[in-house]
Amino acid sequence: MKIQNINEIEETEVTMEGAKDAKMRLLISDKDGANNFAMRMFTVEPGGHTPFHFHNYEHEIYVLEGEGVLHGADGEHAFKSGDVIFVQPNEKHQFRNVGEKEMKFLCLIPTPEKCA
Amino acid sequence: MKIQNINEIEETEVTMEGAKDAKMRLLISDKDGANNFAMRMFTVEPGGHTPFHFHNYEHEIYVLEGEGVLHGADGEHAFKSGDVIFVQPNEKHQFRNVGEKEMKFLCLIPTPEKCA
Repeated sequence: MKIQNINEIEETEVTMEGAKDAKMRLLISDKDGANNFAMRMFTVEPGGHTPFHFHNYEHEIYVLEGEGVLHGADGEHAFKSGDVIFVQPNEKHQFRNVGEKEMKFLCLIPTPEKCA
Repeated sequence: MKIQNINEIEETEVTMEGAKDAKMRLLISDKDGANNFAMRMFTVEPGGHTPFHFHNYEHEIYVLEGEGVLHGADGEHAFKSGDVIFVQPNEKHQFRNVGEKEMKFLCLIPTPEKCA
């Protein structure tokens, strides 16, 4: 059993190519004994974004704060705090902060070696 | 790709024995094509709680609102909004709302047939 405040968890810059002004906290992972999926929190500054990319696993997202646009292969979709987002495996996606405040969202991914 | 506000998602009473004044929304599940893990949101009224029980799968939790106590085999642990909680498989657990407002948390579980 682990209980931890997010503010106690290290935040690191997202250095992946195509990311801008985005940081990540690894909230729950295999280091905690979580072997099936991992919980991360992303904080994106106004004007910032994640990479426009795709991969062979899904995203389950809960938007905690702010407002943004999900850029997909089919265009742009607005989202805001209190929205849930599911991105299918191999769908192109990018999360852009189009608001004036920080945008924060949880983004969970499967741990491939355990779920494959 | 799915984007949906939580307020558009049906909320149902948790009828499991041992639950009191707790409701659940299924935010992302296999119905959306999410085959590895499911995202649920629980809302517990002041004085309410989830069952004191255990099962063979883990919980990954993010506390959205309110304050509570996690009752485990080893005693009681306070938590509040902005905390993350990991409950291991087979750990006894119960979430109690000890505050004066609604307590809301996300609770994610693996989809057993895919991750076993």
